[in-house]
Amino acid sequence: MRSARSVTALLRRGAQQSTTKWPFRPTAEPRNNFGAVLARRFLSSGTNGESTQHRRVFGRALPNWEKTQSYRGIVLALGASGCLGGLVLVAVDGDLIPVQAFTSTDPGEGKKKLVVLGTGWGGMSFLKQIDTRQYDVKIISPRNYFVFTPLLPSVTNGTVEARSIAEPVRRMLSSVDFYESECVNIDAVNKKLLCRDASNVRVKGKEDFEVDYDYLIVAVGAMSNTFGTEGVKEYCHFLKELEDAEKIRESVVDCFETACLPHLSDEERKRMLSFVIVGGGPTGVEFAAELYDLVSEDLASLYPSVKDLVTVTVIQSGDHILNTFDHRISKFAEEKFQRDGVTVKTNCRVLKVNEKDVLVKEKATGQEVHVPFGMAVWSTGIGTRPVLTKFMKTIGQTDRRVLATDEWLRDDIAYLFEKADIDKSGTLEIEEFQRTMEKARERYPQLEVYLQRQKFRHVVDMVKISPGDAKEKAMHLNVDEFKKSLAQVDKQLKLFPATAQVAAQQGAYLAACFNALPKKDYKPEGPERIRGEGRHRFRQFQYRHMGQFAPLGSEQCGAELPGDWVSIGRSTQWLWYSVYASKQVSWRTRALVLFDWTKRLFFGRDSSRM
Amino acid sequence: MRSARSVTALLRRGAQQSTTKWPFRPTAEPRNNFGAVLARRFLSSGTNGESTQHRRVFGRALPNWEKTQSYRGIVLALGASGCLGGLVLVAVDGDLIPVQAFTSTDPGEGKKKLVVLGTGWGGMSFLKQIDTRQYDVKIISPRNYFVFTPLLPSVTNGTVEARSIAEPVRRMLSSVDFYESECVNIDAVNKKLLCRDASNVRVKGKEDFEVDYDYLIVAVGAMSNTFGTEGVKEYCHFLKELEDAEKIRESVVDCFETACLPHLSDEERKRMLSFVIVGGGPTGVEFAAELYDLVSEDLASLYPSVKDLVTVTVIQSGDHILNTFDHRISKFAEEKFQRDGVTVKTNCRVLKVNEKDVLVKEKATGQEVHVPFGMAVWSTGIGTRPVLTKFMKTIGQTDRRVLATDEWLRDDIAYLFEKADIDKSGTLEIEEFQRTMEKARERYPQLEVYLQRQKFRHVVDMVKISPGDAKEKAMHLNVDEFKKSLAQVDKQLKLFPATAQVAAQQGAYLAACFNALPKKDYKPEGPERIRGEGRHRFRQFQYRHMGQFAPLGSEQCGAELPGDWVSIGRSTQWLWYSVYASKQVSWRTRALVLFDWTKRLFFGRDSSRM
Repeated sequence: MRSARSVTALLRRGAQQSTTKWPFRPTAEPRNNFGAVLARRFLSSGTNGESTQHRRVFGRALPNWEKTQSYRGIVLALGASGCLGGLVLVAVDGDLIPVQAFTSTDPGEGKKKLVVLGTGWGGMSFLKQIDTRQYDVKIISPRNYFVFTPLLPSVTNGTVEARSIAEPVRRMLSSVDFYESECVNIDAVNKKLLCRDASNVRVKGKEDFEVDYDYLIVAVGAMSNTFGTEGVKEYCHFLKELEDAEKIRESVVDCFETACLPHLSDEERKRMLSFVIVGGGPTGVEFAAELYDLVSEDLASLYPSVKDLVTVTVIQSGDHILNTFDHRISKFAEEKFQRDGVTVKTNCRVLKVNEKDVLVKEKATGQEVHVPFGMAVWSTGIGTRPVLTKFMKTIGQTDRRVLATDEWLRDDIAYLFEKADIDKSGTLEIEEFQRTMEKARERYPQLEVYLQRQKFRHVVDMVKISPGDAKEKAMHLNVDEFKKSLAQVDKQLKLFPATAQVAAQQGAYLAACFNALPKKDYKPEGPERIRGEGRHRFRQFQYRHMGQFAPLGSEQCGAELPGDWVSIGRSTQWLWYSVYASKQVSWRTRALVLFDWTKRLFFGRDSSRM
Repeated sequence: MRSARSVTALLRRGAQQSTTKWPFRPTAEPRNNFGAVLARRFLSSGTNGESTQHRRVFGRALPNWEKTQSYRGIVLALGASGCLGGLVLVAVDGDLIPVQAFTSTDPGEGKKKLVVLGTGWGGMSFLKQIDTRQYDVKIISPRNYFVFTPLLPSVTNGTVEARSIAEPVRRMLSSVDFYESECVNIDAVNKKLLCRDASNVRVKGKEDFEVDYDYLIVAVGAMSNTFGTEGVKEYCHFLKELEDAEKIRESVVDCFETACLPHLSDEERKRMLSFVIVGGGPTGVEFAAELYDLVSEDLASLYPSVKDLVTVTVIQSGDHILNTFDHRISKFAEEKFQRDGVTVKTNCRVLKVNEKDVLVKEKATGQEVHVPFGMAVWSTGIGTRPVLTKFMKTIGQTDRRVLATDEWLRDDIAYLFEKADIDKSGTLEIEEFQRTMEKARERYPQLEVYLQRQKFRHVVDMVKISPGDAKEKAMHLNVDEFKKSLAQVDKQLKLFPATAQVAAQQGAYLAACFNALPKKDYKPEGPERIRGEGRHRFRQFQYRHMGQFAPLGSEQCGAELPGDWVSIGRSTQWLWYSVYASKQVSWRTRALVLFDWTKRLFFGRDSSRM
């Protein structure tokens, strides 16, 4: 029992550590995310007896979601910017891959209607790979372009123009139907989407329309999360969409212009030029750095009379900014900000925002401080989009942040143990544990990642390093204890953060699965099934982390590359330039971005308020 | 008497002709415009006894404006985009140039406060030339940038980006104070302006502030004129500001997107893709041409399913589009539009606009036709800005479209005659007429232009060509008849249209006058005074017409160059490129515009709706 507790403690500790030392770069604070796992789970589930049994029970099964764990009608496939509301697959007949879809005698009718919601990283990556000869693909999104989001902070100060990082969907994909509208309701029972023309140009009385689907890929991404903080929506800017970035750009210049008006007091001028960033994650820090560059390199000379009044403040809830990065980068960033005069307030929680200031509680002292601002940017995390919240409500998932599937690690642990506990003793010997975990490892990537992060080569190492148990060979695990602790990992371990990198890879993976579906019924290549016989059809999704950047302004950049390489400085900034130029989705945007960078070198950034 | 009537008839004919064959290019339909004359008049008025007598009567004189003709407190200096509400000078002490301003013992106090409203062509041209060592210059404008307006139509379809034709004021002028706000009231009595921070970023309760001035240059330009047509403001786009162009760009793409939605009828799709342009002037025609290019070169391939439903219609009140251009250009444009399938409805008046269509009355048949549209652009003419309308009301000029000065050709004619009519016979001999007109010619540029346009070398030619009077040497003119007919010219002849070219030249001229003020008191160089003795201080403003372009799309362009040269075709388009590239106000915008043009060649125009 003691060893079991140790394993539990170890897992818990790992989970806690992961919040401060997360190797992937999230666009905001990372959250619990199992989309990819679930997608893989779903795709590898195949057409076994169980799923057949659950076909056509979609409508019935949904309301009792939590109870009918084995229901297979809905699957989170993840991707996009949302670890919360990512890429979702709603299958038709209770199972994703009905064989008849590919063996239909009428090829026209046989083409299943595949609808993709969203044109972000996940959606576009999927769409670029999907074989439109096999599927009748439709895209629904309120914006008719794809945005290269990693350069969004650069748009806020004009280093890069908004249009330089946007590529029209119709340019990228010519053979699919695109409807510029917003999905406002998912009716999974009748397999219908209610869409609404969200723009100003619309036919009166015909704003809404319905779209049928067989497969639905929800890649709407997430939205900024205010965590219910009062006044955020009214008085803060977000940095999630292209329009947000443009609004910020306009506001920054406007703050300077207003501060130059002749009738203001010095205090009012000072407030007008106080820029507050709530959230010390990569987005917040990059924005603060870009803002500092804009002010020091361009605006200072144009607004000489007020330049000394400018303050930039980053409010961070944790101990350090960039706490998901290597501590060297985090430290470098803090030191650079200190040199630049950018204030970093750590261990502070924002209680309230009003028109003029942010009310901040310092965790250490409990003191409440008003931080005045001319402009505030809220960049603390992401939340679920209304259409998904609504959908989750209709299927009874009110307590969740992500659309859930039927299979969860914490539920499957019981099965694993049952299978593994051959002597039915209620506890596992070390060999039994090892065998089981090897199986589980294949199916649950979060375990795999956890082991890698702890530099364990083998599942059994988890037990070995537990203090005091290093030499202990015989070990007994209580199933409930172990289940509980694994569920804890399940809940806290942030498997794939909401980054472009993850979403793009997932989209491509999912499209490849869809394209290969007909073959894979006969040639399954996935891992061995735990519940059921045979193999899963697809190999699990493997995320290849290519590293992450933290641009820190003044041509300085931090980078974490695979293999724990950390690089900081000017050369890293050039690496950043090369990578982001090469990663552009088209030659057009590549040329535009390169020109924007060059332009900035020659002419500085534009300060026109528009 | 008969000859006098002939002159009158001739002048009337000339005035009528000028509405159809106007050599300068207006940004919209040209209107009566005497700003430049009046500016010159004002500046050349000097400090004679009369003006001294009127010093410090500003407040009193204003309400009785029309009656106190000789009042010298306010002068229309013209320029900018407004032949209606152009560049205005309000002098302090009833006269523009009080000598004491330059002989003050305290150089700090001696610097007169010169306030410029507006950052358009007139204002910026003035500001670039004005000597800030002599004047304490302040600029008030709701936009902190200058726009290269001739390229505005190119922004509507994305050939050129909005930011590429905007240059921040603070970049162009570093030594002046700029206040980003809108002047909402001119208090000429107390020499105070009421200004308002027009942006979203402002200090609550302190939106308004006052600015004192000694000299006020109003260069706020004009705004689009709906001529009271119902529904225009609500349902039409204008094309006057950068934001207008961007909104049009967004709307065009949005019309295509909406037309692609699956639930619309063919009729609705067709309406959505009907683009209507009201006004066949240079702006309307250029926009129609740019729109045609966008559709045929870029959108047709991206929206193949609806491309055949697109219609572009130009509604023109006159007989021909581009009727201010040479008839060859006008004809070429009409033929090109016919080939392209752009419908031109001439002799049509718009009665009403509603959400879905434009109600048009065909002048010939009297028939009323509904022309449906997805997007309509209103480009028929320009009107006075509210701040000027309000100001004109306070000074009793309610019946005018332009701010008037105290001296008008029609008023001065009486003086001219009195002086010339040496024998006091009440009629003029031909020699008397000749002498008088030579004097008048110097002072009233509209006469000069009129003579040039009629290819007269000499004033007396006006009489010579009058039918039946060719040989008649002796001629007697009734002063009232002549005055009436000259006043008619005065009213109808469009001296300087509201173009960038005119405004820029006037701004520069006015600044040069201001800069040379101290010298010119001792060394006047203007024409001889008519009322009073001596010479005027400044030579009159000479407008150098550099030609005008009419871009017609598909790399075709029409051009009228000085000396009645007309050029049409692809080579003219290249001339257009060269001229507009060279005329850019900064190397930055030049580089950006050139890049935009190049970008379009390689990658086409962007169709992202943002």
